[in-house]
Amino acid sequence: MATPTEPARVVFIGAGPGAADLITLRGARRLADAEVVLYDALTDPALRELAPQARWVDVGKRGFGHATGQAAITALLLQEAQTNRCVVRLKGGDPSMFGRLEEELAALDAQGIACEVVPGVTAALAAAAHSQRPLTRRGSGRSVSLSTAMTHLGALQATRSADTEVFYMAGRQLAALSHKLLEAGWPACTEVCVVSRAGWPDALTTEHSVASLADGAAPHAGRPAVVTVGAGAVALMHKTPAIERPQDQTPGPAD
Amino acid sequence: MATPTEPARVVFIGAGPGAADLITLRGARRLADAEVVLYDALTDPALRELAPQARWVDVGKRGFGHATGQAAITALLLQEAQTNRCVVRLKGGDPSMFGRLEEELAALDAQGIACEVVPGVTAALAAAAHSQRPLTRRGSGRSVSLSTAMTHLGALQATRSADTEVFYMAGRQLAALSHKLLEAGWPACTEVCVVSRAGWPDALTTEHSVASLADGAAPHAGRPAVVTVGAGAVALMHKTPAIERPQDQTPGPAD
Repeated sequence: MATPTEPARVVFIGAGPGAADLITLRGARRLADAEVVLYDALTDPALRELAPQARWVDVGKRGFGHATGQAAITALLLQEAQTNRCVVRLKGGDPSMFGRLEEELAALDAQGIACEVVPGVTAALAAAAHSQRPLTRRGSGRSVSLSTAMTHLGALQATRSADTEVFYMAGRQLAALSHKLLEAGWPACTEVCVVSRAGWPDALTTEHSVASLADGAAPHAGRPAVVTVGAGAVALMHKTPAIERPQDQTPGPAD
Repeated sequence: MATPTEPARVVFIGAGPGAADLITLRGARRLADAEVVLYDALTDPALRELAPQARWVDVGKRGFGHATGQAAITALLLQEAQTNRCVVRLKGGDPSMFGRLEEELAALDAQGIACEVVPGVTAALAAAAHSQRPLTRRGSGRSVSLSTAMTHLGALQATRSADTEVFYMAGRQLAALSHKLLEAGWPACTEVCVVSRAGWPDALTTEHSVASLADGAAPHAGRPAVVTVGAGAVALMHKTPAIERPQDQTPGPAD
């Protein structure tokens, strides 16, 4: 762990959900000091402007199961850390949430390399901000669960363990998720909100019930999406119509 | 909801867990455009440097149950929104997590006042970053629950519903939380991590078991704390000693 007398040689930074201006000031300042940046494919290219002096290396991988890819990333990170004064490992969202942080951190720690972790805005919070549907509600929403619908073995799981459940990386599985939510005991009429590309100008919010969740597949096709179920999916009073038109050419349902 | 043709008159901004440099770039830019800023007491005074042109109004309140206080804040927010071009409502952490966002947002929306929500780093993520203990772990930690240990009626609750459970605002209740966790079915030896003032230079991490959690009360006394239980509380291999010495004069246990 980095101490005031030992500056971190590797800084893990959460870039936030996508758009470059959702990184923290601290993250931006650490980037400005980097010699090399290892980044994932989903990161906004505009982040490069925060570290024009650095060498940028794309180590992106998508989805689950790329164990070989992860091992190669960890090996590269160790190598760069041994030959540079300041290496940034830039991850989408927050590094401590579904970021595979522990594998990279443990490998560096085993070599005695000082690390720092700069937190970021995780996708669930960006989705709540865009849709203006707070994840907690006074009286009705006291607990929030964040999980991936997909396990690393490829199975789909869903629970009913909190007032609000948020599922990451579920956009391609909305019909199956609908079934799993019903099986988990969510009433068919429970509110569900799907937000894709939260934080970007073309972010899209659609609202459904657990039973009609499959309708969200078309408008969010090919876009990173977060699915919110329960108390935190309920629209506040007087809200604008549920389905916005995205600004890009993604086909949407007739609304 | 704000659209490109209708700029938001009120911007809710998550300031992050405390230290001013954990606000997002977007939040900092919106602050620079504010005429008035309504902020909570816990916010870092250094944030004022991001909006020296604005009038800053302290509307801080601590803990639960201040219904009158909330109504007064909402009334003031409405009043300022009607007489200013750009009002910022600055909240600690992320506005969608335990931020009472819905009450203020619904009141503005009922008056047709366009709002924007800028997400922030929530305390659980800052605690995970400081302690270098990711909330999700491959194979063992797929779900994360965020909740307050205290209900708005003052009762203490705890569950065992996710691989990792994070409790906000639980620092004063560690002994009682230990009992509730045992009642909820957590084994007595389950790892628990307490982090106070995450994101600040004097942040403090202590590690415990569910059974010994009361030991955390003394070192974290008087400091905002987050309690993490389960998979996400487990230290990575080769870590430095569990109990750090805080940099301030808070008395700590012999370590």
